Amino acid sequence: MTSSGPESAPGPIDPRVVRTRHDILSAALKILVDEGADAVTHHRLAQAAGYSKATLYKHWRSRAQLLHDAFATFDKTPHHLPTGDVRVDLVAELTTFRRAIEEYRLDRTLAALVGLTASHPELEATRVKIVTDGEHVMRAVLGHVLAGPQLDAAVLMLCGSMINAALLHGRVPDDDVIAAGVDLVLAGTEFR
Amino acid sequence: MTSSGPESAPGPIDPRVVRTRHDILSAALKILVDEGADAVTHHRLAQAAGYSKATLYKHWRSRAQLLHDAFATFDKTPHHLPTGDVRVDLVAELTTFRRAIEEYRLDRTLAALVGLTASHPELEATRVKIVTDGEHVMRAVLGHVLAGPQLDAAVLMLCGSMINAALLHGRVPDDDVIAAGVDLVLAGTEFR
Repeated sequence: MTSSGPESAPGPIDPRVVRTRHDILSAALKILVDEGADAVTHHRLAQAAGYSKATLYKHWRSRAQLLHDAFATFDKTPHHLPTGDVRVDLVAELTTFRRAIEEYRLDRTLAALVGLTASHPELEATRVKIVTDGEHVMRAVLGHVLAGPQLDAAVLMLCGSMINAALLHGRVPDDDVIAAGVDLVLAGTEFR
Repeated sequence: MTSSGPESAPGPIDPRVVRTRHDILSAALKILVDEGADAVTHHRLAQAAGYSKATLYKHWRSRAQLLHDAFATFDKTPHHLPTGDVRVDLVAELTTFRRAIEEYRLDRTLAALVGLTASHPELEATRVKIVTDGEHVMRAVLGHVLAGPQLDAAVLMLCGSMINAALLHGRVPDDDVIAAGVDLVLAGTEFR
């Protein structure tokens, strides 16, 4: 029952199709951030991206599929490449996180994703993937100086301070607040 | 032009009206948490709360007014009454916050509120009010041992750890993680 022969191999990917999909998904995330999750519909997206509704329905039969693929383009959160200096690396990673919040409105994208999981539980896996990827550098760097509940608390606090500030306070922390947070956490470790 | 006489005084508030409004707004918040912000409409709410659409439109002419009043019922976040022992008070306040997240899904309510401000900027003031009230005990307790950027960072981190865990990780921190977070922050202060 295994298939073989060229007809079973995935066909070549048409670069025009890739570009079309990318254009539309980028427009979907922009609408999500600017106008809220309610606005991400085939109708509104056809308007905004300049494609026909028929084209949109050809690529995504349901709103759920469309939302899934739009969030999937958020897979690659930018990260700092650790140098080995824990303090420097924590400050740099938080600064990179802050830039992602400002440039891509990562905070609003995440809040919308969480809000949508109530009605679209299939988006849970996307949430887990984005969060795991988003915090893995922070966790690795802090893992040099903390373990167990202390490590969990430190990752939750440092990432959480950015999310809290951006989402609930409507502004990201400045350099002084980022440095103060890192120093508070490191003062509680062997590394000081 | 000042008005006087009994006819200009606000009329007595009919307790049946108060109860009706309270019932409907509670149902609105429940729909928001269970089904997402999209689902909070006059139509869905009339179904869920067992009132006619006409009654709903009599109280709230627009969805924006309905959302505003629903979030306003969230004014009174529960808080711990500080004892003066900073460590005890921080742990107790975070534990109270955790209970509010679990019982009222405060995290989802806040995420929905933030998501809705993109399309309903008039909800910004409600967000600021809820956040200010939500963190004022944490800020007062930490204000005994920290100031300036350190105080801002500690408030953002401790509250942020709960929001991050609930919203993005889908589970609240356990007692060990809460205690570890408080101890990490306090280790960076004069209070240790």
